Amino acid sequence: MTTAQTIKAKAAVAWEAGKPLTIEQVDVMPPQAGEVRIKIIASGVCHTDAFTLSGDDPEGIFPAILGHEGGGIVESVGEGVTSVSVGDHVIPLYTPECGECKFCLSGKTNLCQKIRETQGKGLMPDGTTRFSIDGKPIYHYMGCSTFSEYTVLPEIALAKVNKQAPLEEVCLLGCGVTTGMGAVMNTANVEQGATVAIFGLGGIGLSAVIGATMAKASRIIAIDINESKFELAKKLGATDCINPKQYDKPIQDVIVELTDGGVDYSFECIGNVDVMRSALECCHKGWGESVIIGVAGAGQEISTRPFQLVTGRVWRGTAFGGVKGRSELPDYVNRYLEGEFKLSDFITHTMGLSDINDAFDLMHSGKSIRSVVHFDAEK
Amino acid sequence: MTTAQTIKAKAAVAWEAGKPLTIEQVDVMPPQAGEVRIKIIASGVCHTDAFTLSGDDPEGIFPAILGHEGGGIVESVGEGVTSVSVGDHVIPLYTPECGECKFCLSGKTNLCQKIRETQGKGLMPDGTTRFSIDGKPIYHYMGCSTFSEYTVLPEIALAKVNKQAPLEEVCLLGCGVTTGMGAVMNTANVEQGATVAIFGLGGIGLSAVIGATMAKASRIIAIDINESKFELAKKLGATDCINPKQYDKPIQDVIVELTDGGVDYSFECIGNVDVMRSALECCHKGWGESVIIGVAGAGQEISTRPFQLVTGRVWRGTAFGGVKGRSELPDYVNRYLEGEFKLSDFITHTMGLSDINDAFDLMHSGKSIRSVVHFDAEK
Repeated sequence: MTTAQTIKAKAAVAWEAGKPLTIEQVDVMPPQAGEVRIKIIASGVCHTDAFTLSGDDPEGIFPAILGHEGGGIVESVGEGVTSVSVGDHVIPLYTPECGECKFCLSGKTNLCQKIRETQGKGLMPDGTTRFSIDGKPIYHYMGCSTFSEYTVLPEIALAKVNKQAPLEEVCLLGCGVTTGMGAVMNTANVEQGATVAIFGLGGIGLSAVIGATMAKASRIIAIDINESKFELAKKLGATDCINPKQYDKPIQDVIVELTDGGVDYSFECIGNVDVMRSALECCHKGWGESVIIGVAGAGQEISTRPFQLVTGRVWRGTAFGGVKGRSELPDYVNRYLEGEFKLSDFITHTMGLSDINDAFDLMHSGKSIRSVVHFDAEK
Repeated sequence: MTTAQTIKAKAAVAWEAGKPLTIEQVDVMPPQAGEVRIKIIASGVCHTDAFTLSGDDPEGIFPAILGHEGGGIVESVGEGVTSVSVGDHVIPLYTPECGECKFCLSGKTNLCQKIRETQGKGLMPDGTTRFSIDGKPIYHYMGCSTFSEYTVLPEIALAKVNKQAPLEEVCLLGCGVTTGMGAVMNTANVEQGATVAIFGLGGIGLSAVIGATMAKASRIIAIDINESKFELAKKLGATDCINPKQYDKPIQDVIVELTDGGVDYSFECIGNVDVMRSALECCHKGWGESVIIGVAGAGQEISTRPFQLVTGRVWRGTAFGGVKGRSELPDYVNRYLEGEFKLSDFITHTMGLSDINDAFDLMHSGKSIRSVVHFDAEK
C-alpha cells in the first residue's frame, strides 16, 4: 500500500493537434488502488504517436501526454498491487492482460478488453486522470503516456521484465518490434523452411524480417519502394529485396513467379489497403496466409475476389503481434538478452526529452527508424 | 489390366448453354492406363451443374456430360490401377488426391492440382475424352460426368467407400453435403460449445447445420430470407432461425447483439459477396472465423474494413469442405453408416435419367433441396 505523494515531473504535452509538444512541469498523482507509478527511463517515438498528434486519429484527445513505447522502474504501488514491487523494471502495455475478461479467458487472443473503454477516452479505469497542470487535468494516451518522467498505469498493463535488460533498448518491445516479430512468430506461427513476404520496411516490417529470420524461414522477400531500406533488411535476414516500381506488373504477380506459386506467409506493415490486397494475393494457393499489421486510414476498405479465399488463402490481422503482454512479453526480453536478436539496429537516434520534437521531424523526413528519448540525458 | 471394350451407355448430354439436356446413346471407351470405368448407380443434381448449363461458368465447355455428385461401381480398370478393383463402390471426386503433387505433399490443403489443367478443359489427363457419339467427342465435366450410365475417371479421383452404404444416398457426399459438413468440421474445426452462424439454408447450408450439430456447437444460428427452410434447419439442429428481412438493421449487428459480441464461427453458403461481409462482421472480436463456401459471380469482390481483421477476425474459404477425397471421404461414409447423420432429409426428389431436366426445373423453382437420379429407375 502506497504512502506516495504527488510528484512534479517533466513531461512533453500535446496541447492540440498539429502543434509541437511543449515540455511542462506536470503533477503526477500517486497510484490509486490497483495502479502503479513508474519512473520512465526511456521511450521510443512511434508512428502512432505522430498519427494521433496529426489530428487524424478519431480517438485523439487533447491535452494529453503521448508516448506508448517505454521502459521504466516502479516508483510506488497502489493498494492491492501484488504482481510488481518498487524497483521492478517494467514495460507499459497499451494492450493489458487482466486474465479475467472473456477475451483473456478465451486463450485465443491478446486483446484484453478490461479497461478498453476508459483507455480510449484518455482516462484511468476509475474515469479520472493522474496528470494535471495547475489543477487542470491532462489526458492519458493509449493507457501509457510514456513521454513523462513519471506516469501511472493499472497493474494489469505492466510487463515485469528482467532487470539486466537495458530499458533504453527493450522499450522498443513495448510496441513496434514486438508487433512485427510477434506477427510472424505468434500470429502466423511461421514454421522452419517457410517462404515469407514482408511489405514495408519501417520499424515493424524490419522487425517482421527479424521474426522470420528467428523462425528460420527459408526465403524472406522484403518489399519497399524506398531502396535505401534494403541494406538493413538484408543485414537482418532478408534474402530478396524488391522494389515494386521496378516492375510493369502487379507485385503479387512478380512474387508468385519468383516463388513458384506464391509465399506461405505475407505481412502488410504499411497500412495501405491496396498493398493489403497484394499481400493476400501473393500467397500460395491452398495454404498461404496473409497478416495485416498496418493500420489503414479511417473508412478505407480492403477487397479481393472471394475465389482467393475459396482456393485456400487465409486473411487475418494482428495487434501487438498477438503477444500477451504480461505472460509473453517478458520472454521476448529474455530472448533479446540471450542474443537471439538485436535492437540497436533500430535505434537510429537518441535525444533528451526537451528535443522530442526532433524525433517527429526525423520520422516525417524518413531519416529515422526509431528515435528513443532518454530521460536522464539532461541530468 | 483391362481387356474392356467400348460400352454403349445412356447419358444426358448438354449440347449448349441454356438448353435442356437430351438423353443420348454415348460410346464410353475403356479406361486407359491409370483410369477406371464406373457404372453410375445414382447422381445428385447440384447448383453447379445448373450454373454451368446456364452459360455463366467461364470454364463451361459443350457438348459435355454434366454431373459431379455420383456413386457407382467399378466396371473395369486400366493398366497400373491398384487402389480399386472391379466391383468396388466408389464416389467420383472432382477434387482428386494424387498424394504426390506439391499440394498433396503440403498436408495443408485438399486442392490436389495434378490434373487441374486437363480437367478444366473437359479432358482426361492425356488430353482426350472417353465419351463420343458417332465418333464426335463429348467433353467430360469437373472430371466426373456422372449423368451417364458409365463414366471414366482417373484412379486418383475415386474414393473407395464401404459397400454397405446405399449409393443412392451417399452420392450426396460427392459434393454438397461434404462441402457443408467439412467446412464446419474440417476447415473451421469447430469445437464443442462454440457458437456458429450459417448463412443460406440450401443443401450446403443445411449440411453445415448438420456439421455444427455433430461438432456439438452450443448455438447454431441459421439465417435465410426464405422462412420455409427453418423447419428442416431446426430439425437438423439449428437453435435459432433468423430472417434478415425482419430487422431494420444489418444482420451482423443483430447477431452480434444476440450472441454478446458475435459468433465464434460463421459460414457463407450462398455465393453473395454482401452476405460474405455480414458473415465476417458477425464474428466475435479477437477470434471469430468466417468461412466462405459459396461461389460468387465472376468479377465480384468481397470487402470490409481491415480493422475487422486487425482486431482478430479471420477470413478464409473452403472447397469440398477441405476434405481429402481418397483419405478422408471414406470415413464420412462410415460415420453416415454409424448413424451420426442422415442424408434422407436432403433428398426431396428422385427420378430416372430420362426425367433429369425436371431436377433442374425443381431446383430453379426452389422446390427441391436435392434431386437424385437413379440410373436403374427405368429398368
